Amino acid sequence: MARTLDGTELSRVMRAEMAQDVAALQAAGVTPGLSVVLVGNNPASQAYVASKTRACEALGMRGQTLTLPEDVSKEELFAVIDRLNADPAVHGILVQLPLPAHLPYKAVLEHIHPAKDVDGFHPVNAGLAFVGDPRAFVPCTPAGIMEMLRREGIPTRGRHVVIVGRSLIVSKPLASLLMAPGPDATVTLTHRHTPDLASFTRQADILIVAVGKQNLITADMVKPGVVVIDVGQNRVPDEGSPRGYRMVGDVDFDAIQPIASAITPVPGGVGPMTITMLLANTLQAAKQAQPRTAQG
Amino acid sequence: MARTLDGTELSRVMRAEMAQDVAALQAAGVTPGLSVVLVGNNPASQAYVASKTRACEALGMRGQTLTLPEDVSKEELFAVIDRLNADPAVHGILVQLPLPAHLPYKAVLEHIHPAKDVDGFHPVNAGLAFVGDPRAFVPCTPAGIMEMLRREGIPTRGRHVVIVGRSLIVSKPLASLLMAPGPDATVTLTHRHTPDLASFTRQADILIVAVGKQNLITADMVKPGVVVIDVGQNRVPDEGSPRGYRMVGDVDFDAIQPIASAITPVPGGVGPMTITMLLANTLQAAKQAQPRTAQG
Repeated sequence: MARTLDGTELSRVMRAEMAQDVAALQAAGVTPGLSVVLVGNNPASQAYVASKTRACEALGMRGQTLTLPEDVSKEELFAVIDRLNADPAVHGILVQLPLPAHLPYKAVLEHIHPAKDVDGFHPVNAGLAFVGDPRAFVPCTPAGIMEMLRREGIPTRGRHVVIVGRSLIVSKPLASLLMAPGPDATVTLTHRHTPDLASFTRQADILIVAVGKQNLITADMVKPGVVVIDVGQNRVPDEGSPRGYRMVGDVDFDAIQPIASAITPVPGGVGPMTITMLLANTLQAAKQAQPRTAQG
Repeated sequence: MARTLDGTELSRVMRAEMAQDVAALQAAGVTPGLSVVLVGNNPASQAYVASKTRACEALGMRGQTLTLPEDVSKEELFAVIDRLNADPAVHGILVQLPLPAHLPYKAVLEHIHPAKDVDGFHPVNAGLAFVGDPRAFVPCTPAGIMEMLRREGIPTRGRHVVIVGRSLIVSKPLASLLMAPGPDATVTLTHRHTPDLASFTRQADILIVAVGKQNLITADMVKPGVVVIDVGQNRVPDEGSPRGYRMVGDVDFDAIQPIASAITPVPGGVGPMTITMLLANTLQAAKQAQPRTAQG
């Protein structure tokens, strides 16, 4: 029976550690600050943004939300980002996705100064992460998975990691991190065009699934002892729940838990780690900003 | 018996195509120009640089070499790069590696303006390539391999590509390109920490080897019909040769050719494609520079 990799508990430990760093920065006169730009009034986006800023404040950081109307122009949005880029009290900037269709999200993300891009979506940060530069902001979900593996004592060197999915914000950066010197994993990246997916997933010592499809991975698709990291977040109707739905991942948790050696639950696995790494990136941004502030 | 993937012949065809583009740019008053910075007098580096500038000139492009003394300071080298960055007649800049130990090669490469970084080693270009942005300069060897596969009609979608090696200038960008939408390959990246390498290489529909170790891949490590791309360049003593050595790749060519469906020779495979893609990147830089020139 696999042990459960408890992202909520890990996050609690990490956030307690970070609160000490925040207190030390505050004693030096600096309060790390995250500004989140939210366009429109999508309820799910509002909830995500609120949980991010709440998590900041719980750590003693400044969490600010700037809400712009659904029909804001590109120029107005850029002007808001320009102001945040120039504001020394703002260390991290995040534009909540998705954006309305009239706004070019790639250009918007590139407008954020790379030194404040705590989501790690700017091509400059993608490049720095790709070459293993410590200045890089690594996207929060891959960073959270690496931190979880490390803190749970799950070795990656010489292990075969199979990743299902090839998104730019999870799978591709994760592949890059895992294969680098240090983690030293052998990495296979699979996706919709992979024939006979099971022939790959069955080889995995560590299986990471980030597709968004309930029950994509069934018990016959894994080998005994596998470590399973489930990044999926799928809503399924549930009349017994107050909200009318519940969240499930991409793997058949109940069937795979008896076979695996370790597995992340959904919710409570990768999800909390993602927000925790957003806080870690904001803290990193505040620390990296200090020499520049000192120089004027 | 595998057909030979002839990089020399492919390069001849591609360079003839490019010469037409160069002629068109010249008719519009623009001569694409590559400037190569060479520090010191390493004979191998001198030979590489000479072959690059000669290839430029053969196409009607401008090829310039700036030779700096072995003990040039970082500041002097940066000043040379600054001047080239600012020179509108220079479209591509390349600093020949390796540099003497007193020069920080990462900082030097980051000093080249990304829009003139035709080697594709600047983190900004690594990031743009990572996210699939067409403005990216892709490093020449991975770009040459992709071009070779395309022109030779070797499909990658749904194929399992196994890459041996994880260098930042060949294997990692190549993995990123091959797994992206379009090429759609399933990609496994292996390296020195991969136990039982043969268990991976035997799965390969396409095997790409970029390690620098003669006979690393033997006939028992591949499956029948495999496509083999050999990036290795190893000198072995050869008294029968006028130079006293000959070049071999990382795979046992003679033993594998009867089993494979296609294979690149060394020399004459990937090598010529690499210089051809440097010319292609310089041409791309000259074309991309035009709107800026027009605006002043």
